[in-house]
Amino acid sequence: MNVKEESLKLHKQNKGKIKITGTMPLNNRHDLSVAYTPGIAGPCMEIAKNKKNAYEYTLKGRTIAVVTNGTAVLGLGNIGPEAGLPVVEGKALLHKKFAGTDAIPISIDSSDPDEIVNTIKNIAPGFGGIHIEDIKAPECFYIEDKLKEELDIPVYHDDQHGTAIAVLAGIFNSLKIIKKKMNELKVVINGAGASGIATAKLLLAVGVKDIVLCDLNGAIVKGDKTLNVPQQEIAELTNKNLEKGNLKDIIKNKDLFIGVSAAGVLTREMVSSMNKDAMVFALANPTPEIMPDEAKLGGARIVATGRSDFPNQINNVLVFPGIFKGALEARIKDIDDNIKIAAAKGIAALIEDSELNEDNIVPSVFDKDVCSAVSKAVIDTAEKLGLTKETLVS
Amino acid sequence: MNVKEESLKLHKQNKGKIKITGTMPLNNRHDLSVAYTPGIAGPCMEIAKNKKNAYEYTLKGRTIAVVTNGTAVLGLGNIGPEAGLPVVEGKALLHKKFAGTDAIPISIDSSDPDEIVNTIKNIAPGFGGIHIEDIKAPECFYIEDKLKEELDIPVYHDDQHGTAIAVLAGIFNSLKIIKKKMNELKVVINGAGASGIATAKLLLAVGVKDIVLCDLNGAIVKGDKTLNVPQQEIAELTNKNLEKGNLKDIIKNKDLFIGVSAAGVLTREMVSSMNKDAMVFALANPTPEIMPDEAKLGGARIVATGRSDFPNQINNVLVFPGIFKGALEARIKDIDDNIKIAAAKGIAALIEDSELNEDNIVPSVFDKDVCSAVSKAVIDTAEKLGLTKETLVS
Repeated sequence: MNVKEESLKLHKQNKGKIKITGTMPLNNRHDLSVAYTPGIAGPCMEIAKNKKNAYEYTLKGRTIAVVTNGTAVLGLGNIGPEAGLPVVEGKALLHKKFAGTDAIPISIDSSDPDEIVNTIKNIAPGFGGIHIEDIKAPECFYIEDKLKEELDIPVYHDDQHGTAIAVLAGIFNSLKIIKKKMNELKVVINGAGASGIATAKLLLAVGVKDIVLCDLNGAIVKGDKTLNVPQQEIAELTNKNLEKGNLKDIIKNKDLFIGVSAAGVLTREMVSSMNKDAMVFALANPTPEIMPDEAKLGGARIVATGRSDFPNQINNVLVFPGIFKGALEARIKDIDDNIKIAAAKGIAALIEDSELNEDNIVPSVFDKDVCSAVSKAVIDTAEKLGLTKETLVS
Repeated sequence: MNVKEESLKLHKQNKGKIKITGTMPLNNRHDLSVAYTPGIAGPCMEIAKNKKNAYEYTLKGRTIAVVTNGTAVLGLGNIGPEAGLPVVEGKALLHKKFAGTDAIPISIDSSDPDEIVNTIKNIAPGFGGIHIEDIKAPECFYIEDKLKEELDIPVYHDDQHGTAIAVLAGIFNSLKIIKKKMNELKVVINGAGASGIATAKLLLAVGVKDIVLCDLNGAIVKGDKTLNVPQQEIAELTNKNLEKGNLKDIIKNKDLFIGVSAAGVLTREMVSSMNKDAMVFALANPTPEIMPDEAKLGGARIVATGRSDFPNQINNVLVFPGIFKGALEARIKDIDDNIKIAAAKGIAALIEDSELNEDNIVPSVFDKDVCSAVSKAVIDTAEKLGLTKETLVS
């Protein structure tokens, strides 16, 4: 039985992956009068006085929604809201198991960005945060930006920021090995969708100067009106030398390849054209842009993938449980670049210098310290920036 | 410490009343590959082929949303979506404890009926049913009707149908005691909101011919353009003798008073003006329209309230857990009058003739047989009517 068959069997047996459990006794009339009427009027009235009290008396402060519309699911594409459910339910399971956060899967039957924004906005009162998942680009950018403007709880699109933060953690440690500096790096990002663009933005924020994004049609260059709006915006900030051509041309003399694209698009020859001490982060799932042994044969010094069966698994699972655990605990509204960078540093710091090597640039996703390192980074940064509970509206 | 204080304390300790629990192991890389990528592509693809498969591979088939907007919460009125959370979270707890159903509280930040309809419709893919709660009349009628048209999962407004079914169960057994027939009954319903109108409709469906609804301005009479639309509609079907006046006038020579209104509006004298063997169902919570001892002094033979500290507690808790348990199990779309009547009969039948008396017309809400009796009634009726899983769209 292969892993998909095993997954089908287990999903069918369990009817999914999460369930509800009650946290109050309900065995007699007294219990009922406390958990429900008439006692419940107490919490209702306290919250009616000040809606912030929902954090004290309800699930809100410890519960997030994991929201998709099923338009960009794994490598499967637009498979619809029902078919997107296993992924958001899976993320809810991971939030619970890795961070103890209560997460509720919500799948939205709409592909209209404003309709999605309104729906999420409307259901926000019961949640302490919104984890956006598997909504296709470029709509995902508009949806996240708009929700950040309109809601007073944290909103976080994992496909963008989870990848960006995990990649940055891997870069921090790789630079120690190859002894290069962030501002000297020449980077090519293959894939100009949600995760590619978000990764480019975060690398700019830590001082990387030379980044070129490629897509199916080659390098993203400013002024190209065939690009979508988020691509046009990132084109203004990257590819300062106006490099043109396909990945094969662009990758020459780069230090770092970040693939958030598709299986097998990177060849051994292309890796050979990179600079000495090349880093290849081939993150397409389940089949990477190049298999690690091929990349090594092409001369790459450090190779990472998204897979658990190779060294250096750069995966969002390192990031999102701790991000929301920290954001809920510090009750911050905005998961900004400072927090993302601190989270990446927190992950990287888990590999001690004595253990750092080409095949050990990021901790295992099962390292029990990862989630707490990330949440601590979030909380410490929030405190340092003065983002306390008191600055929040709701 | 009174019950409200105790409730505040317990809600604060627990941060609400429900939490998420994972149902799949997640201890190593293999578990992760089955519960999440790459194995999860298996369930995703099966559902992409046919969205009905979401019932097999996700939480959908065992999970409902309990949805409010906080506009008609308990006796507290329009206190907002955050303040409505303790009630929908409470209903979720009751669904779990009494029926084993996974229910997720959703509170909607809108009072626009179409916006509410769209929001619920949009989040429906992840749910097997929609339990509407504490949305004010008359909007609640439009919202339920519209959702029933547009969704292929059951939609059920508990304030309407839970009350109607529980009242009907109480009537079935009361009629055995006082030896009257359904079609002979003269009924006054005080309160022409969600539960009053729904109760009137269900009584009409079981053959009651003489019903007058009263509201703050007195009897509801057809042709009165000051009534809202649902009231105008029910006025066409009730009050055939065009009775006019206040409750005090209307209650004279009635057999049954059903109060879904406010504390203390019924006096001993009004009860005295009712027919022999009068039945008084004074269901306002927490303080009934008349206290039971007063009603008895006024000559009532059977008195019921919504409270747990008096005999004959007629409460929605008898109904909604079994309704959704049955609806999910039979996977029916429409909780129609046939099903509601069967549910009421199922509840009533739990009181054996030998145990039936004026102070024992409905089972206790803690009677473990109630939920299964209701769900069995739902399932049996669905089968009898040919409402099988195969007739459903999603």
